[in-house]
Amino acid sequence: MSRLPGAAEAARAIAAGRTTSQEVVAACLARIAEREETVRAWAFLDPELALAQARACDAAAEPAGPLHGVPVGIKDIFDTADMPTAMGSPIYRGHRPAADAAAVAILRQAGAVILGKTATAEFAGTHPGPTTNPHDAARTPGGSSQGSAAGVADFMVPAALGTQTGGSVLRPSSYCGIFGFKPSFGTTARAGIKFAAESLDTVGLHARELDDIALLADVLWGREPAGIAAPAAPPRIGLCRTPLWHFAEPETAAAIEEAAEAARAAGAAVDEVRLPAAFEALADARRAINDYERARAMAHEWRTDRDRLSPALRKIVASGLAVPHAEYRAARARTRDCRHMLDWLFDDWDALLAPAVNGEAPPGLDYAGDPAFQSLWTMLHVPAITLPTHRGPNGMPVGIQLVSRRGADDALLSVAAWLWQACGTGET
Amino acid sequence: MSRLPGAAEAARAIAAGRTTSQEVVAACLARIAEREETVRAWAFLDPELALAQARACDAAAEPAGPLHGVPVGIKDIFDTADMPTAMGSPIYRGHRPAADAAAVAILRQAGAVILGKTATAEFAGTHPGPTTNPHDAARTPGGSSQGSAAGVADFMVPAALGTQTGGSVLRPSSYCGIFGFKPSFGTTARAGIKFAAESLDTVGLHARELDDIALLADVLWGREPAGIAAPAAPPRIGLCRTPLWHFAEPETAAAIEEAAEAARAAGAAVDEVRLPAAFEALADARRAINDYERARAMAHEWRTDRDRLSPALRKIVASGLAVPHAEYRAARARTRDCRHMLDWLFDDWDALLAPAVNGEAPPGLDYAGDPAFQSLWTMLHVPAITLPTHRGPNGMPVGIQLVSRRGADDALLSVAAWLWQACGTGET
Repeated sequence: MSRLPGAAEAARAIAAGRTTSQEVVAACLARIAEREETVRAWAFLDPELALAQARACDAAAEPAGPLHGVPVGIKDIFDTADMPTAMGSPIYRGHRPAADAAAVAILRQAGAVILGKTATAEFAGTHPGPTTNPHDAARTPGGSSQGSAAGVADFMVPAALGTQTGGSVLRPSSYCGIFGFKPSFGTTARAGIKFAAESLDTVGLHARELDDIALLADVLWGREPAGIAAPAAPPRIGLCRTPLWHFAEPETAAAIEEAAEAARAAGAAVDEVRLPAAFEALADARRAINDYERARAMAHEWRTDRDRLSPALRKIVASGLAVPHAEYRAARARTRDCRHMLDWLFDDWDALLAPAVNGEAPPGLDYAGDPAFQSLWTMLHVPAITLPTHRGPNGMPVGIQLVSRRGADDALLSVAAWLWQACGTGET
Repeated sequence: MSRLPGAAEAARAIAAGRTTSQEVVAACLARIAEREETVRAWAFLDPELALAQARACDAAAEPAGPLHGVPVGIKDIFDTADMPTAMGSPIYRGHRPAADAAAVAILRQAGAVILGKTATAEFAGTHPGPTTNPHDAARTPGGSSQGSAAGVADFMVPAALGTQTGGSVLRPSSYCGIFGFKPSFGTTARAGIKFAAESLDTVGLHARELDDIALLADVLWGREPAGIAAPAAPPRIGLCRTPLWHFAEPETAAAIEEAAEAARAAGAAVDEVRLPAAFEALADARRAINDYERARAMAHEWRTDRDRLSPALRKIVASGLAVPHAEYRAARARTRDCRHMLDWLFDDWDALLAPAVNGEAPPGLDYAGDPAFQSLWTMLHVPAITLPTHRGPNGMPVGIQLVSRRGADDALLSVAAWLWQACGTGET
C-alpha cells in the first residue's frame, strides 16, 4: 500500500484477501511514527494492543462484520475498557473505565480494530489539547474532536469517532480538510460518553471519504451497509447564509457561492433561504443551555477537583451555575419551537447549504476557532455534514456545510454525494 | 424522634439545632437494622460511612446547603465514587466508579448524606432485585427503583433518587404508598447514570411528603427551595382514562373516580379528556424505542458478558437488535408528534388525572408489575407524579397519577398539593 486506504476500501481489501488487518494497522502505525511528533493527534496509542486486535481479526475464521479488521480512532471522551480514558483532563489521567462506550462496543462487534484514543479538548469543551493542524502545524486543527480530525486528515487512521455539542466534529473536519458528519440528535447511542451538554451532545464521524461516513453510520445504527443512494432528481438546495453571515471570511463566502453555482450548473434548484427571526435568539439560548448543562455534567469534578479544571472550564461552570433554572427551561422551549419551524421549512428543500466555518483555521493552538456556524445547527438537532471542497488564501482547507431535516440523515448524505460530484471534487 | 421525619422536616430540625444529622442517620440505620431482613431495600449500605458523613455535617461551621445533614438513598444505577455501583447485575458486583453521578454530586453539594445504594432491577430494567413490599413481604414493591420506593415507604430513609424509563419511579411508589415524581424529560442531569433507553430515561424522586419532592427537585435543578405554590384558582383537571382503561382493576377505577369527585367537590373544573387516536400507537412505538435503545446501551455487556445477563434482558436486547433502524426512527418521529399534540391539549387543562397502576401490587417477587399506565406518559416526556391516596381490597396502597404539560413541573406540583388536600389526605 502506497497510501492508507479509506475504511470502506480497507474493509473490501481485507475481505477479498488483498491485504490484511495487520498490514493496514501497520501502515497506520508507520504514519503515526513518522508524523505524531508534529501532529500530536493521539491521547493514547499502544501499537502492540492495536496489532494484537489486527492479528485476532486476521486469524478469525469468519469476518466479524462490515468493519472486519478496519482501524478506527476513538475520541478520548468515549470510555474504553482496554485503554485509558483521560477526557483531556489531568483529573482522569490513566483512568480506566469498566466498560466500552456503546459506540465503541458496536464498532468492535462489527470487527473494527480500535487503534487508539485521539486527543480531545478538556471534557470535549473549549480548552484545547496539544494537536496541531496537519496542513500547518502553527495552526489549530479546531476542536474539540481535534485528534480525530487531524489523525484522519493526516492519514494516520481511515476514520474516527468524535462528538459534537457545539461544533466539535464539523469545525475540526473543515479546518483539517476532511468529511465530518453529525447525525440527527438522538440517533446514535451515547452510553459511556462523558456528557458535555446532554441535550446537544451527538456522536459524530470523521473520514476522508464520504462512503466511509455512510459505512460507519450504518454500523452504528445497526443497518446492513448499503452505500449512499443517489438522489432521484437533482436536489432542491436552499442557500442559507444564516444570521451569522457577517462572520464569514471571504474564503467561506466564496466557497458557499461557488458551491451554490456548481449545484445550479448541475441542475439543482437553488434559492436563498432566510431563517425566521426567532432563530436569532438561538445564540443566547445556546449559551444558557450549554453552560447550565455543562455545570451539571461537571458537578462531581467541580465539587472534588475544581483546581484541576482549566480556567476556561471553571468560567463556564460558574456561568452555568448562575443560569436560573427558569431561564434554562425557557431557552429549551424556544429552541424546541425553532426545531419545529425548521421541520416545516424542509418541505421545500432537500438540504440547506450553509457556511461550515468562519474561514481557514486560525493561527495558534490556544484557540480552536469559532463554533457559531456549526452550533446553530447542532442546537436544531438536524443532521449536518461538512465537505472539504475549498482552500483559503493560505492554502488551508475550508469546508462547506449541508444540513437537512431532523431524521433525514440518508437524504443529507445523498445530497452531499451529489454536491461533491457537482463541485468537481468527487471521485468517480 | 419517635418516627423518622421527612427530608424538609429533618433539614429544618437540623438547621434549628433541634436534632443532628447523626441522630437522623442513626434513626435510619436503626430502622434498617430492624427491617432490612424483610424488606431488602439496600444494595449497599455501610453504616460507618453514612455516620461519618453525618458527623462531618454536624461538625461543619456553616450548613452546606438546603439538605444539610439529610440522608438520601440512591438507586444503584447512579455512579457513586465512595460506594460500589452494581446496577443490579452480577457483572458489576463490587464495581467502583471513578466519579459520582451528577445528581449525587449535586445532592452532596447541598449537604445531603448519601445513606447507601438502593436495590434496582437489573440495569433498571425488568429483572427484579430482592426487595419486598413493606406492606406485604409476599408482594412485589414494583420496579425498577424498588429499593428506593420500599426504603422510603418503610421509613428507612426520608427520600431517594430513582430513574424512570417506563414506569420505574411511579409504579413502585404507587405500590409502596408514597409519592413518586418523574420530572419533564431532560430537566434533570443524567451524567453518571447507566442508560436504559436514553431518549426516555429520567431521574425521579421518591418521598413520603410532597414538600420533600419539591425540595429535592429544587436542589437538583439549582433553585432556591421555595416550597410548592398554591394554584391561583381551583385547577382545571382533565380526567383521562387513557386507551388502557380496560387494564384498570376496580380499585384503580374507584381511586380515579373518587379523586375526580373530590376535585369537583373542592371546586375544580373536571371533565373527561380523550387522547387523540394517534396515541394508541404509542405502545408499539415504546417497544421499538425501548428495545432498540436498550440493545445499544448494553452493547458492551452483550459483547463481553452475555451469559451474565438475565434471560429477560437477553430477550430485550435480541429484540432491540432486530428492530430495523428505520422503524426506530419512525417510532421516534410518531412519538414526537404525539408530544406536540399533547402540548396543545394542555391549553385547556392544568393537569390530567389518570390511573397510576393497574391496581394493587401483585403477589410474588418475580414480576414487578405492568408499566403501561406509567410508560404512556414517560413516552410523552411530560412531568408525572403519583399520590398515595387509596388502598385496594387487600389493604395495599393504590396511587393516582397526575401529569401536566412538558416543562410545567411547577404547575403539576401545585395541582398535586391542591388535590392531595382535596382528597382529604393532605396534612395542614
